[in-house]
Amino acid sequence: MNEPLRMGMVGGGRDAFIGAVHRTAACLDNGVRFVAGCLSSSPDKALASGADLGLDPRRNYRTWEDMLQGELALPPGQRIDFISIVTPNHVHYPVARAFAAAGIDVVCDKPLCHTSEQARDLAHTANKSGVVFAVTYNYSGYPMVKQARDMARQGELGDIRKVIVEYNQGWLAGKLESTGQKQADWRTDPSRSGAGGAIGDIGSHAEQLVAYVTGLEIDAICADLTTFVPGRRLDDDANLLIRYAPRGGVQAKGILTASQIEIGHENDLRLRVYGTKASLIWHQEHPNQLSFRPDGEPERIYSRGNGYLGAAARKNTRIPAGHPEAFLEAFANVYNAAGAAIRARRTGAALADADFPTVIDGARGVHFIEKTIESSRSDRKWTDARWTNL
Amino acid sequence: MNEPLRMGMVGGGRDAFIGAVHRTAACLDNGVRFVAGCLSSSPDKALASGADLGLDPRRNYRTWEDMLQGELALPPGQRIDFISIVTPNHVHYPVARAFAAAGIDVVCDKPLCHTSEQARDLAHTANKSGVVFAVTYNYSGYPMVKQARDMARQGELGDIRKVIVEYNQGWLAGKLESTGQKQADWRTDPSRSGAGGAIGDIGSHAEQLVAYVTGLEIDAICADLTTFVPGRRLDDDANLLIRYAPRGGVQAKGILTASQIEIGHENDLRLRVYGTKASLIWHQEHPNQLSFRPDGEPERIYSRGNGYLGAAARKNTRIPAGHPEAFLEAFANVYNAAGAAIRARRTGAALADADFPTVIDGARGVHFIEKTIESSRSDRKWTDARWTNL
Amino acid sequence: MNEPLRMGMVGGGRDAFIGAVHRTAACLDNGVRFVAGCLSSSPDKALASGADLGLDPRRNYRTWEDMLQGELALPPGQRIDFISIVTPNHVHYPVARAFAAAGIDVVCDKPLCHTSEQARDLAHTANKSGVVFAVTYNYSGYPMVKQARDMARQGELGDIRKVIVEYNQGWLAGKLESTGQKQADWRTDPSRSGAGGAIGDIGSHAEQLVAYVTGLEIDAICADLTTFVPGRRLDDDANLLIRYAPRGGVQAKGILTASQIEIGHENDLRLRVYGTKASLIWHQEHPNQLSFRPDGEPERIYSRGNGYLGAAARKNTRIPAGHPEAFLEAFANVYNAAGAAIRARRTGAALADADFPTVIDGARGVHFIEKTIESSRSDRKWTDARWTNL
Amino acid sequence: MNEPLRMGMVGGGRDAFIGAVHRTAACLDNGVRFVAGCLSSSPDKALASGADLGLDPRRNYRTWEDMLQGELALPPGQRIDFISIVTPNHVHYPVARAFAAAGIDVVCDKPLCHTSEQARDLAHTANKSGVVFAVTYNYSGYPMVKQARDMARQGELGDIRKVIVEYNQGWLAGKLESTGQKQADWRTDPSRSGAGGAIGDIGSHAEQLVAYVTGLEIDAICADLTTFVPGRRLDDDANLLIRYAPRGGVQAKGILTASQIEIGHENDLRLRVYGTKASLIWHQEHPNQLSFRPDGEPERIYSRGNGYLGAAARKNTRIPAGHPEAFLEAFANVYNAAGAAIRARRTGAALADADFPTVIDGARGVHFIEKTIESSRSDRKWTDARWTNL
Repeated sequence: MNEPLRMGMVGGGRDAFIGAVHRTAACLDNGVRFVAGCLSSSPDKALASGADLGLDPRRNYRTWEDMLQGELALPPGQRIDFISIVTPNHVHYPVARAFAAAGIDVVCDKPLCHTSEQARDLAHTANKSGVVFAVTYNYSGYPMVKQARDMARQGELGDIRKVIVEYNQGWLAGKLESTGQKQADWRTDPSRSGAGGAIGDIGSHAEQLVAYVTGLEIDAICADLTTFVPGRRLDDDANLLIRYAPRGGVQAKGILTASQIEIGHENDLRLRVYGTKASLIWHQEHPNQLSFRPDGEPERIYSRGNGYLGAAARKNTRIPAGHPEAFLEAFANVYNAAGAAIRARRTGAALADADFPTVIDGARGVHFIEKTIESSRSDRKWTDARWTNL
Repeated sequence: MNEPLRMGMVGGGRDAFIGAVHRTAACLDNGVRFVAGCLSSSPDKALASGADLGLDPRRNYRTWEDMLQGELALPPGQRIDFISIVTPNHVHYPVARAFAAAGIDVVCDKPLCHTSEQARDLAHTANKSGVVFAVTYNYSGYPMVKQARDMARQGELGDIRKVIVEYNQGWLAGKLESTGQKQADWRTDPSRSGAGGAIGDIGSHAEQLVAYVTGLEIDAICADLTTFVPGRRLDDDANLLIRYAPRGGVQAKGILTASQIEIGHENDLRLRVYGTKASLIWHQEHPNQLSFRPDGEPERIYSRGNGYLGAAARKNTRIPAGHPEAFLEAFANVYNAAGAAIRARRTGAALADADFPTVIDGARGVHFIEKTIESSRSDRKWTDARWTNL
Repeated sequence: MNEPLRMGMVGGGRDAFIGAVHRTAACLDNGVRFVAGCLSSSPDKALASGADLGLDPRRNYRTWEDMLQGELALPPGQRIDFISIVTPNHVHYPVARAFAAAGIDVVCDKPLCHTSEQARDLAHTANKSGVVFAVTYNYSGYPMVKQARDMARQGELGDIRKVIVEYNQGWLAGKLESTGQKQADWRTDPSRSGAGGAIGDIGSHAEQLVAYVTGLEIDAICADLTTFVPGRRLDDDANLLIRYAPRGGVQAKGILTASQIEIGHENDLRLRVYGTKASLIWHQEHPNQLSFRPDGEPERIYSRGNGYLGAAARKNTRIPAGHPEAFLEAFANVYNAAGAAIRARRTGAALADADFPTVIDGARGVHFIEKTIESSRSDRKWTDARWTNL
Repeated sequence: MNEPLRMGMVGGGRDAFIGAVHRTAACLDNGVRFVAGCLSSSPDKALASGADLGLDPRRNYRTWEDMLQGELALPPGQRIDFISIVTPNHVHYPVARAFAAAGIDVVCDKPLCHTSEQARDLAHTANKSGVVFAVTYNYSGYPMVKQARDMARQGELGDIRKVIVEYNQGWLAGKLESTGQKQADWRTDPSRSGAGGAIGDIGSHAEQLVAYVTGLEIDAICADLTTFVPGRRLDDDANLLIRYAPRGGVQAKGILTASQIEIGHENDLRLRVYGTKASLIWHQEHPNQLSFRPDGEPERIYSRGNGYLGAAARKNTRIPAGHPEAFLEAFANVYNAAGAAIRARRTGAALADADFPTVIDGARGVHFIEKTIESSRSDRKWTDARWTNL
């Protein structure tokens, strides 16, 4: 077995939600050990949270700046291999920038940062220092999403004409942020969440899922963002029409909806891709199935763990068909792929398959959020939303 | 038992699809007898088609003008009670106008006609002559749609914030009209279908379904119509953002998609309504169920035929729960409701419940199609699409 | 068009459930006209019920004996072509026997009669007089059931190893018969329903569905019948293990469950057939789909109305895919197939395809009920339940 | 945080399936560390497998006897806290007996052992030494199964009348054991698997699931075991009728089917419980939902992670609703509950809630397998299968 990678973490302390998911996912397959952290922006809470989790007191830091300094002072063989950033959004940028600049590989939650300017800076910093920089768009870690991507790439859909992606949630239908619920509190606060509410928190997942599966690039956006809950400061519902860049003579059209006020939906991310030959449907809440619908033939239900699936789906599967895998495993797949890149960087080995979202995907996501907000404020129907790879 | 109403029909001869559905539905509960017809625009085919169906040769007409004249010449007790118009769209207007003007009640397929001007004329004609004028937006005939309407009206959803309606089809993903397939042929021909392709043929059903269930009125539309199949002359895919007129201080937002190129979908009409208290989901291909999702409680699956349902659902149900009813029965419910109005007009009795779409709904539908096309051609994001009841 | 067949009916008056279904189904495609009836065992109710339905008073009979006599007195060209018997079970035998003996074709509801002796007598009577004798096992009228049958016959499943058939209902979980509910009343009364409760009323449908689709013959039965509701006189729950006659060297095993006390199920008839090459699953409450699962390949969802289906499914389909058909249409398919046989008998024409259940199927069903009851009372595990075609 | 428990493992080396699941599940929440092992019955393979996983060479043992001796030689603060036994079935007994007798807590896979005599011995051994002895009936670890149990216990179903439990698999429909596939090889070999094939491997899960949720005790069994695949030495299909001990005056009836030859099913464990007031349905392949069907009301879909669920479901949930949890998490819940008992034994603290299957459940399962085989060979319908707690 490979020696596990040493992970440090910023954020994810007491009361956090996603930090524990990151830790469990990162370590799921024993490829990573969690060895250092600054788990809260409050030094006392940070220390208490790290103690809860059994961190070595010397590596349970009061501030992320302390952690960076402390880890750099360790010999390379003990120092963290990478930093996982799972704070509220506004902290992503300074932390990611500092660790990347110091040559420490980065795994950062999404959305990457608040502005395209920050994103560009992060991408340049990562590029300059040569670090691996993964962004945890976790839904692209699902095996059946990878199967969808393979099938789309291999032309089984023909030319893509239309994409409908939905991210339906209902948890913010009431003013939950008034109750002190921590997740609602920061996600509805522009100073911490960024300029996007639903569009940033979940719409960016939807954008990335489409890009990952189809490879389509957005040409233009027509957005209508709404804040339904009185007194809320960010959008809680986003509806978009999209025009993708023509490919093979076909310009695909899209609908993207992301909402946090749709009562009765939990975490209902759905993707449909319609081509000239077939269509695909995937649904995050039942992630082990993928519907494939070739023209003129019966619908086929592909199921995770079967021999008829492609290499990417098989590689990202742990247990046999019918023994359902879910959210944690998909998240772990992102960490594993990033981990493979981190190991490859250490050894200088060629990386066969860098199948994880990078700082570039994160930057494209920030651009998408900005353009959506711009479009929503515009009277023009179409807002140019083309993105130039950094 | 009431004496059955006597129905004449225009259209619906050999090779037609929807004519047989209308005849079966109209007569399903023995409230209607089919006694006269001009079943094709080709006189020979009309006569042959009527003979196929056993029409009395004296009432099997060569032209609809002959039928109108012939029926008016009969004594009222033999004359048709109403005309059912099931032709391609371009024939609706002249036939409906002539019969309505002659005082004969009308049941007409949707979309009502090609232009708002025609629609206004039909509404005025019907109003002047006092005839009953039903438009067969058949999906509003489903019992569980009526249940949804009742629940929305009674406030079980709270204020409505968002509506997503989809009408997904894939049958025109290829150029079926080139093969001589009759349904594809006229539906893709602007001179017969009207200015709308998918938006007219199925988008108008989606519009009516929302209006029927929610009572929401459209304020503004932002549409993107596409013709994906090369050489086709009408849109085969329609994506809309919608703003509804504020109600109770809440402005509902909407997404409407209607497509004929989404391979793998058959007749996949779906409605979701999200309110401040609960949401509703209905799906035409499994029409006997209705999902109701109150905030903070488990989803509830309402099922047709059960005692916990409201009066409208129960009234429009024939057979017990679990013995599925479907398309024909919903269609028949529209005919039955129209038939009740026709009988009431005969007897002068008050009509307790005119639960069927009328010429007014048809006119609003034509307005919707026109505004969608206008919006699709516009660079402005929002096209005013308010409609003034005629 | 063919002249419609003239149908008489016994039973199905006021308060009945299934009579109206038979009338609607028989006449759905205009191949049958309902012209005579004795709609209740109570003469007054019979007359009132017939008047409700607009029967010619001369052919609205007080007793079924009157009807038989009255119709025989009419010239053949006016006389009913066939009698439809939709009474409670105990009336099936005398009526069917008398009409069959008089040379009038018969359509009779299931279970055919109370005893195998009666069944044998009916089969012999029908055989002697040469009449057509259909039994309305309506679920075999569904197009996707016919597709399943075709696929099983054509070897797409390989050799059949196992069959699971369920008929789950919950409507008799309480003592509904105490409330005066008419359906519950006679169905739980041995003198009218026969010796079987759930096993007779719905178990017999399950038996026939398996026989129809698979062609398997029952060798032996191991049954456990229960009466859960205190005071009820017939079983309301039936669970069976079944051994089928070996075929191709494989002895298939079966599970059959039929229950009226399973709260939360409405009319939940389900069939699963497992072969050496593939399996099939069908569910009556969503009858337009059929799941086909070939070994080592993705599940395929066959959907009614598509071109890839076989001749039998296509022939029994009225409207396009996605426009759901349901219970009434399946019932009508049984009437249509029986009607074709009745017409063929009139004309002496060869009948290409007698695809409807006959008195033989009805007799086998009665045998099945008897053997199940015998088994349930026995301490031996297996009760020989082989059936010799009459 | 509590210091993690130290786990040793027997079995689960290269080519094994379930060993990795146990390791991941045990360590998922950082409550357990894997520190010692003998991962194969082949010493060379054992050492290689342990090295793969990074075991300390001093605690990577050649035989389980070596491990027992080696660990006992360590000071208590270093010695393994418990042994996890994940070998083929025939090895469970000697290993479990030896470790239990030595006072080391045991987590053992199911079925517990080959005979009731062995099971009794294990139970007595565990009782005498006072060890915690868990058996990994992992399906009872699912939160929605715990919710079902709570609802059944709290009387929300009323008295239970009927239980249908199915464990449908198709992976052994062909003679997979001839191909050298390791899982198929030992599971179809009586000397390693025990006297039960499908009934032992998966039927025992079904038995335990019913007992866990309902608390019903089996009175009598009527079984039909079949070996469909030629040349196979154990049953690959099991169908049972069951009579449960009367409770509250109601004797519940049951159907249990467990099959490995049902093509198209993967790991399709389903449970339905029907009471006098309501019913429950749960399905392992979509484990985050639970259907509750109260009499006369709409079906309700309970979904994991929501506030309306009971304490047991909430306690066994890690991530929010809509972020699906699955097989691994359920397995981990069993380890966590066993771990709590192990910690409580260390500290002498009272254990609030010992919510995990024990040696007693394992023994009852072995009894069930034996009685099923006895019944299958018997000509009598009912085989007494009552079980006396040891």
